[in-house]
Amino acid sequence: MLVEYDGRPFAGWQRQADQPSVQGAIEAALARLEKREHTIAAAGRTDAGVHGRGQVAHCDMEKTWDPFRLSEALNYHLKPNPVAILKCVAVSDDWHARFSATERRYLFRLLTRRAPSTLEAGQVWRVNHDLDVEAMREGAQHLIGLHDFTTFRSTMCQSNSPVKTIDEIQIDKVEGLAGTEIQFRLRARSFLHNQVRSIVGTLERVGAGAWAPERVKTALEAADRAACGPVCPPDGLYLTGVSYPDRPFD
Amino acid sequence: MLVEYDGRPFAGWQRQADQPSVQGAIEAALARLEKREHTIAAAGRTDAGVHGRGQVAHCDMEKTWDPFRLSEALNYHLKPNPVAILKCVAVSDDWHARFSATERRYLFRLLTRRAPSTLEAGQVWRVNHDLDVEAMREGAQHLIGLHDFTTFRSTMCQSNSPVKTIDEIQIDKVEGLAGTEIQFRLRARSFLHNQVRSIVGTLERVGAGAWAPERVKTALEAADRAACGPVCPPDGLYLTGVSYPDRPFD
Repeated sequence: MLVEYDGRPFAGWQRQADQPSVQGAIEAALARLEKREHTIAAAGRTDAGVHGRGQVAHCDMEKTWDPFRLSEALNYHLKPNPVAILKCVAVSDDWHARFSATERRYLFRLLTRRAPSTLEAGQVWRVNHDLDVEAMREGAQHLIGLHDFTTFRSTMCQSNSPVKTIDEIQIDKVEGLAGTEIQFRLRARSFLHNQVRSIVGTLERVGAGAWAPERVKTALEAADRAACGPVCPPDGLYLTGVSYPDRPFD
Repeated sequence: MLVEYDGRPFAGWQRQADQPSVQGAIEAALARLEKREHTIAAAGRTDAGVHGRGQVAHCDMEKTWDPFRLSEALNYHLKPNPVAILKCVAVSDDWHARFSATERRYLFRLLTRRAPSTLEAGQVWRVNHDLDVEAMREGAQHLIGLHDFTTFRSTMCQSNSPVKTIDEIQIDKVEGLAGTEIQFRLRARSFLHNQVRSIVGTLERVGAGAWAPERVKTALEAADRAACGPVCPPDGLYLTGVSYPDRPFD
């Protein structure tokens, strides 16, 4: 299933005993359709406040469901949670939303203006000052490719290895309805815990002129969490898409 | 002052004794700066649930305020209301946000998809079906120019005359993050109460194929509120801008 959600009311994707989660909301909706315990797996276990635009999850059903009817029934039972199933498709038994994924894509929206955000509250990270996009692009170039990303991952990260490959960091200045947005688009096979927010928070320091672009390289090479810039808030972060070899949603 | 707001928590722009309003929120913030009763006037008295992106209002101050400091102080006192003062400028004593305005611009966002909206909830009107943009453009053409808009105004409308001139209705199909949006942009010197929502609700019927485009002309010429299509919800409506001969914000 292709899933969209507003991350604000949730403690994150992952099911928790005592707090609302996106996984828990979808599993509860599934239990209305087939009365038993359900456990679904997702491509990206987004943190509290992080939004989904193209999250992908899979579930195992006993009955044979028509995919369109399944998505309609889930959306009905998901109300009033801000979670929507955009599409369901049938996949083979060995297909896994997390382990079959070959690429994850994230968008981070940053709004540069003095006035507080209103309609975009919780959906962008607002900073008071202008940012130098060229300097941020220069800083970002040091992160492209295969690296030890120890500096840019949470100390809580459970990944076996800090070595990852970032395929792209695209940085655009976009004139939106609320003012100038800086949009960061990141592409990789997989990301470490807090990696996108650590990178965007660091690049913001470069854009603000507090860091020279080369300091991103020094920080990366230090392979030391303490060398990272400030981790930015989750508000502007969206999991926008996941790729699979069999392109299930095409 | 140039004002942005999320219309959802408010009973509308206009101050009310027992319900939250945008006007009331700004007047309360002004009272923190100059302790007395304040009455501000706005270019457009938007309804409950309608959003402001470029609303304009004026206030009378006793002290001489630096415009930037005034906007910063107002934003400070407006918290946690989703209302932001984007800019303040000093104007002459005879300048009036409503009566000096020569053009108002509205945007209406309509999202066409089956799945409920999540991140755009309350900010778009979602319809289940596709819409024929060409047919809607053809229907909209009948409304351009000087007409008696009795069909397209609320029976509660307090305007002296139903005769208005619509300068433009631009209809665009836009691929957004949540799917296909139809965006309506309307431009006029002034609008009647519920005029934009009556027009968009009627054009939606044309786009859905339930109304032939020519029926918009028949409905207009009937000069009868009963001939109008359904009035659409406020969720997708934004006052995006107001023009003045002296271009105060340039």
